[in-house]
Amino acid sequence: MAHGYETGRLNLPFVGIATFAKSPYVPDWNAIDADVAILGAPFDFGTQWRPGARFGPRAIRDASTLFSFGHAGAYDHEDDVTYLDGVRMVDLGDADIIHTDTETSHANIEAGVRAILDAGALPVVLGGDHSVNIPCIRAFRDEAPIHIVQIDAHLDFVDERHGVRHGHGNPMRRASEEAHVEGLSQFGIRNVSSTAREGYEDARARGSDILSVRQIRALGTEAVLARIPEGKRYYLTIDIDGFDPSIAPGTGTPSHGGFLYYEVLELLAGLAKRGEIVGIDLVEVAPDYDRTGTTAILAAQVLLNVIGRVFHARR
Amino acid sequence: MAHGYETGRLNLPFVGIATFAKSPYVPDWNAIDADVAILGAPFDFGTQWRPGARFGPRAIRDASTLFSFGHAGAYDHEDDVTYLDGVRMVDLGDADIIHTDTETSHANIEAGVRAILDAGALPVVLGGDHSVNIPCIRAFRDEAPIHIVQIDAHLDFVDERHGVRHGHGNPMRRASEEAHVEGLSQFGIRNVSSTAREGYEDARARGSDILSVRQIRALGTEAVLARIPEGKRYYLTIDIDGFDPSIAPGTGTPSHGGFLYYEVLELLAGLAKRGEIVGIDLVEVAPDYDRTGTTAILAAQVLLNVIGRVFHARR
Amino acid sequence: MAHGYETGRLNLPFVGIATFAKSPYVPDWNAIDADVAILGAPFDFGTQWRPGARFGPRAIRDASTLFSFGHAGAYDHEDDVTYLDGVRMVDLGDADIIHTDTETSHANIEAGVRAILDAGALPVVLGGDHSVNIPCIRAFRDEAPIHIVQIDAHLDFVDERHGVRHGHGNPMRRASEEAHVEGLSQFGIRNVSSTAREGYEDARARGSDILSVRQIRALGTEAVLARIPEGKRYYLTIDIDGFDPSIAPGTGTPSHGGFLYYEVLELLAGLAKRGEIVGIDLVEVAPDYDRTGTTAILAAQVLLNVIGRVFHARR
Amino acid sequence: MAHGYETGRLNLPFVGIATFAKSPYVPDWNAIDADVAILGAPFDFGTQWRPGARFGPRAIRDASTLFSFGHAGAYDHEDDVTYLDGVRMVDLGDADIIHTDTETSHANIEAGVRAILDAGALPVVLGGDHSVNIPCIRAFRDEAPIHIVQIDAHLDFVDERHGVRHGHGNPMRRASEEAHVEGLSQFGIRNVSSTAREGYEDARARGSDILSVRQIRALGTEAVLARIPEGKRYYLTIDIDGFDPSIAPGTGTPSHGGFLYYEVLELLAGLAKRGEIVGIDLVEVAPDYDRTGTTAILAAQVLLNVIGRVFHARR
Amino acid sequence: MAHGYETGRLNLPFVGIATFAKSPYVPDWNAIDADVAILGAPFDFGTQWRPGARFGPRAIRDASTLFSFGHAGAYDHEDDVTYLDGVRMVDLGDADIIHTDTETSHANIEAGVRAILDAGALPVVLGGDHSVNIPCIRAFRDEAPIHIVQIDAHLDFVDERHGVRHGHGNPMRRASEEAHVEGLSQFGIRNVSSTAREGYEDARARGSDILSVRQIRALGTEAVLARIPEGKRYYLTIDIDGFDPSIAPGTGTPSHGGFLYYEVLELLAGLAKRGEIVGIDLVEVAPDYDRTGTTAILAAQVLLNVIGRVFHARR
Amino acid sequence: MAHGYETGRLNLPFVGIATFAKSPYVPDWNAIDADVAILGAPFDFGTQWRPGARFGPRAIRDASTLFSFGHAGAYDHEDDVTYLDGVRMVDLGDADIIHTDTETSHANIEAGVRAILDAGALPVVLGGDHSVNIPCIRAFRDEAPIHIVQIDAHLDFVDERHGVRHGHGNPMRRASEEAHVEGLSQFGIRNVSSTAREGYEDARARGSDILSVRQIRALGTEAVLARIPEGKRYYLTIDIDGFDPSIAPGTGTPSHGGFLYYEVLELLAGLAKRGEIVGIDLVEVAPDYDRTGTTAILAAQVLLNVIGRVFHARR
Repeated sequence: MAHGYETGRLNLPFVGIATFAKSPYVPDWNAIDADVAILGAPFDFGTQWRPGARFGPRAIRDASTLFSFGHAGAYDHEDDVTYLDGVRMVDLGDADIIHTDTETSHANIEAGVRAILDAGALPVVLGGDHSVNIPCIRAFRDEAPIHIVQIDAHLDFVDERHGVRHGHGNPMRRASEEAHVEGLSQFGIRNVSSTAREGYEDARARGSDILSVRQIRALGTEAVLARIPEGKRYYLTIDIDGFDPSIAPGTGTPSHGGFLYYEVLELLAGLAKRGEIVGIDLVEVAPDYDRTGTTAILAAQVLLNVIGRVFHARR
Repeated sequence: MAHGYETGRLNLPFVGIATFAKSPYVPDWNAIDADVAILGAPFDFGTQWRPGARFGPRAIRDASTLFSFGHAGAYDHEDDVTYLDGVRMVDLGDADIIHTDTETSHANIEAGVRAILDAGALPVVLGGDHSVNIPCIRAFRDEAPIHIVQIDAHLDFVDERHGVRHGHGNPMRRASEEAHVEGLSQFGIRNVSSTAREGYEDARARGSDILSVRQIRALGTEAVLARIPEGKRYYLTIDIDGFDPSIAPGTGTPSHGGFLYYEVLELLAGLAKRGEIVGIDLVEVAPDYDRTGTTAILAAQVLLNVIGRVFHARR
Repeated sequence: MAHGYETGRLNLPFVGIATFAKSPYVPDWNAIDADVAILGAPFDFGTQWRPGARFGPRAIRDASTLFSFGHAGAYDHEDDVTYLDGVRMVDLGDADIIHTDTETSHANIEAGVRAILDAGALPVVLGGDHSVNIPCIRAFRDEAPIHIVQIDAHLDFVDERHGVRHGHGNPMRRASEEAHVEGLSQFGIRNVSSTAREGYEDARARGSDILSVRQIRALGTEAVLARIPEGKRYYLTIDIDGFDPSIAPGTGTPSHGGFLYYEVLELLAGLAKRGEIVGIDLVEVAPDYDRTGTTAILAAQVLLNVIGRVFHARR
Repeated sequence: MAHGYETGRLNLPFVGIATFAKSPYVPDWNAIDADVAILGAPFDFGTQWRPGARFGPRAIRDASTLFSFGHAGAYDHEDDVTYLDGVRMVDLGDADIIHTDTETSHANIEAGVRAILDAGALPVVLGGDHSVNIPCIRAFRDEAPIHIVQIDAHLDFVDERHGVRHGHGNPMRRASEEAHVEGLSQFGIRNVSSTAREGYEDARARGSDILSVRQIRALGTEAVLARIPEGKRYYLTIDIDGFDPSIAPGTGTPSHGGFLYYEVLELLAGLAKRGEIVGIDLVEVAPDYDRTGTTAILAAQVLLNVIGRVFHARR
Repeated sequence: MAHGYETGRLNLPFVGIATFAKSPYVPDWNAIDADVAILGAPFDFGTQWRPGARFGPRAIRDASTLFSFGHAGAYDHEDDVTYLDGVRMVDLGDADIIHTDTETSHANIEAGVRAILDAGALPVVLGGDHSVNIPCIRAFRDEAPIHIVQIDAHLDFVDERHGVRHGHGNPMRRASEEAHVEGLSQFGIRNVSSTAREGYEDARARGSDILSVRQIRALGTEAVLARIPEGKRYYLTIDIDGFDPSIAPGTGTPSHGGFLYYEVLELLAGLAKRGEIVGIDLVEVAPDYDRTGTTAILAAQVLLNVIGRVFHARR
Repeated sequence: MAHGYETGRLNLPFVGIATFAKSPYVPDWNAIDADVAILGAPFDFGTQWRPGARFGPRAIRDASTLFSFGHAGAYDHEDDVTYLDGVRMVDLGDADIIHTDTETSHANIEAGVRAILDAGALPVVLGGDHSVNIPCIRAFRDEAPIHIVQIDAHLDFVDERHGVRHGHGNPMRRASEEAHVEGLSQFGIRNVSSTAREGYEDARARGSDILSVRQIRALGTEAVLARIPEGKRYYLTIDIDGFDPSIAPGTGTPSHGGFLYYEVLELLAGLAKRGEIVGIDLVEVAPDYDRTGTTAILAAQVLLNVIGRVFHARR
């Protein structure tokens, strides 16, 4: 049979080297031949409270094995679709990180994303803290313009404080400065935050559409999707703290009152149909603060579902 | 006074041997004289990812003591009913488990459930992984037919893989093969799962009614209850991963987007009125993954509430 | 600039002595000159199951630093208000606690609250178990009458059991006996509880308005607020177990089916407008049962938001 | 065969109700017919830092099941002895504890020990904090005189502070006041401690022999034993913090530089031969601070070995 | 420079796919070209108490990355040797495991070890529980005879109980039945154990040399080594519970009074010089019981040091 | 009485704001009037594996409260000395840390140490990772020469890798370049390490005395002390990973085979007598990896004992 239950290996989740979804490991970044390429960006020097997102890539890979036990694709009975069937996925390992050196570390991440783009694959970057989004967006400078959709508790729109411009509070401000970034949709932003009033005014002045979790619930998924420019090339950046601490406690700066699982999945499933998702990062999983594994499982489950829907939409 | 606050013992939750709800311990299974009998089934060799459900019975018993501090019954102010008042409950301890030997271990569980049925008591089995449902259902072979209501994230309808027929992915398929099982209602089934498309087709062909969490929310409790054949003898099997990982992280294979507490309680309270609940198992509590105790407390709280409603309905 | 990002210290959350929100530490209780004064009440000898609320004050202080990184006030983009701007807050440290001696410990807490009231500041007490509410309420004996609003899973209306009158199951009963307490609104009370039917009857006879989480959801925030006498002086007592275990597992006696974050915040924001909140305690955070920090972060986030709204309403 | 491996139950450690070493549970304290009787004393209101020793009895019972899988006795190949063979052990459950009420709680513990002594069995009390030693010693008032051997990091010789006389810093002072206590050997006492210089002077004046861990290592086991009066009736009180934090982190007040396993076992094995051990308590296991289980396993392993040697010596 | 610090990657421990010591991943077992080959054996159905050794291989691989940051070899300043320099190591991933099916799972492990032996490499197997030693030893049936050196707290010499012959209490008995096993040295065996007196007699009758930790300390390393037949082909099986729980709490059945780090390292360094170590397994690391990572770090540190000494001795 | 047990506050360890040993908090660094001043340096961007030492200062302060319950000084019965009696200690809070900016963060730490030296107090710095030693040593540039005594598992003598010169692997190399550093004694260095052979050769060439744990045990405390130049001004830098992982698992890069508690205490007690200890840092406590608190308690216990002995020696 196609999914090979009876031949080959049973391949239970706890068996085998932990690449993302047990996809082939491709250490040679000049040899990428795939639809999707996973890149780890274990950088967390930009963190302002609890560090540990450097262990995010390994934790997400480990959790992803739960969803990879010998199936060909992932059947969803509600949609009656077997997602990921035929999607060629590879894991590139991690960008090299130099402790105390943000600039070089970010450059290495950018190089990885560029290699994926050159190979014509969808880059999916596993953070690391949200500052890793900065080199990811830079890697798209030679590509067609993109619209960024952000899932996050925090606006991350600080320009500069005490000289810091590339910490995890700055990425959306940095993105807004890029010529190839056409617009920002910032969803889930709420409550006490690291961005002061000026940051919000700045973001709105630069064209951001900012919605809180409660505002999104009041609008409904369809109305929220309608606010995103249609038919664009979307870059999706998911800060795991956009989700509620009840399902994502393993993160640096949790904020209560966040998204639940299906709220985000339905929004992203709609986005995959509304245009083309051309890049993804998922950041701020700090596994040592959540020994239940719930946060890392969430990250893996969201990513696998979104990747599946991206390629289903492309058919 | 009846609840003995002033006489006898205060009996705070942390005091005393941890039987289920501090009910009497009856090691002699030929001497069961009770309305409800608790049986532990600490078997987890059928697990495909995180083991540890073998410690589920002890963890649930320990958590259950929180709800047992000197009261005669459990007063619910919303219903204005004191549940469990006068219900005679005993704890039989655990079925004997033989490591590496699934067959004998399952047979010992079956023997325990048969002893309870012979004594005319309601069997409530504490798992253990979901494979312990297989001997529980077998124990009803000489009883009147039953309809199974399952709360679960996963369909558990795999027939056989690599020769495995009695793991925790197989119980509902095994149940569907039994002559005394009239039907299955499978609630909470969702998202990426261990069952491939064929399993769903197989289940539906055999008469299963499969509903996801979102489908159940859209229908409402009453409409869902209406889909369950009325006036039947129900066997209730609760996989704790049917609940959301936010309240049940302590389990082998968590799946995001699950049930919240009152969603399940209201469904089961309705079920208790719609027919007769004649057997219960609650499985897959693996306490070492949830050191907060939340998962085990959930299991104990659900069980005590359901048992209370079963006997209130019988009056 | 006003919030001092470029001058002085960046003051990241993990930097500095952990007072509440990094407010000035005022060990001399005769020298309180502030709008709000924080007092720790690390007493947990009244606990009936899991102890450890004695570490609540330190954990809440530590978590509160997450919300205190160099801002002048906390900007909320949904309300377009910068809360806490200009509010003078101090931390008094903790009341002295004598192990095995409930009476003296409670007296020390009462003395602290009286010192705050004498200084004309809003007392905010960090428990400790819910019995610390007893001396807090006593401290208001010489003040104008108060109406108590309680957020809690449990009624805490036990009169006396085995001679115990000042444990964490007794505070609302004790409060109801005080001449200066005009009424009680008890919100979130649910399911299996430590209070038997007589306690509920007793509470209602003494004028309590008791509502469960589900009843409050069915009524809506406005209707619930309308049941609270208007224009009163409110004393707010928040037992963290009023919240759902998914976001507050770090507590002595969790109870499933509780409040979510915004449900409580919206209720308390409304209360701050409906009259004057003149005293607050938040109790039963037992941090060692929740190593993710989620519970303590919730406590800090709720308190900072409520304090902000209290003083915004006073303008 | 005698140990019943092939007949009856395999009885793996994780199977069955967790009484101490799976010995029979005897809830009726008037029906004790045994050589050894286990009594839980889950009292921890006397704790001065980290509470939680109330969960000590359950944790030690649970850990003790590791050493109880189907054997008749415990074979020690170094001694070539099968200890515990034929020793009749029962578990009485716990003394009733009244929160906020030290006096009554202690009285209940005393009543339990007296019941055991009346039945002619060896009392083995599982704490609870070290204050539970106070009622244990009181229970021997009508027995022949005893000499106390204490394993502990702290002297516990505080007379009274702020009125506290029955906290966990006071038991040895209280014991020294009893007429039936002939002497004290205090072993393991070290470093920064809760007892000031006056306490040491007081203890020595009352005849205590105080030795630190390093002093005991320098003397050697035999020389230490020689300092204990020979042929006496010994009461053994083991504070788990006498052991090093590397193997006993799960306790209220750990102190570095403590005993290792065999150091204590060899000392106690020698004591069992030097006279008659007539009572034992093991206190201050607070399991929630040690999620590895190491501390509780240590407590169970020490107790089972000591009990075995006590009865081997009596032959 | 040889160790490539300035060129190529810095390769910090937390960066990259977690193979053992970041050695190349060779999924094709017919293409092994190396001096050492690592094989995971994530099987734990033979466990009698705490399961979870199935996650041992991933945890040890993860911990091993700590010792692999860009060096060519591991310099030991005490020996003035750079171990592992030039040693070609590969990671084969894991043997396939079939839940509920011990026989097939063991057969898959045996196939992996045979593939390594066929390739002329040193097999190093990461367990899994100690039953995985059974197929490892079987894989040597066609090789020259071996002498087994075991580091363990338990004798593991049970013949059969309740029909179980391939659980984690049986491997040394099974080994003793193999024609190609010349002898057994069993070191670290101590205290209360799963093997009854008959097992010890049986083992000695079959030629085992059994020494406890204390006996080994009394003898000294050299004298212990002298008891092992010289010039043999040694198979080394290390149960992590041979070490003291203070450094190896993350295991199924900890036993107090175990080996410290250098005690074992010095013994194994001596063994590597006394003959040829031709196979190694390290078993019973159950990482979820030790969230500090200490146990897995110990396993990785021991293995890397032993492998280094094996190949240094071969020069 | 002098220690104020009966008057004032009992001041149990869990009560009060957590400054180091509950010493007065002095936020104004121009107002230091004390014998000892504590400075937190919560910087961990120099970490190469597990981050989190930024939470070290808070954890050590919290643990230090265990040793501060109302005593005047700390009585040590083995020495018959009440240490710390009359020593005036203050806590300055933390140096300001700028995320992503090592240079400014280090400068802020240096400024703090200089302020302490200017006030004539003994600086005691709580790390942070070991790179915080770099600014500490710099702060002594205008002081009389110092000899550095290091307790550590790792040599930390890397000159530069990939441009990194101020990470936690570089401090001793940086120190050796300073004109005011006369010599280095590096104790505890062992096994697999981050420093390659060249680093050791470099260190020895620059005059370092490097000893492993085993070498120190073989020599004995007195012989080791004799190798340290006598009558010097000693700067003491303690990396907590110099201790064994059994008592210090909460650190970034644990290394097995480390020092036990009294081994270090005796060495440092001797050092305090051999010359003048003029500065101390204790680094690499990363509390989130050790939820038992053992590591932070060790740090606090070592520091309080050493500070006590420093001032006892000065009398």
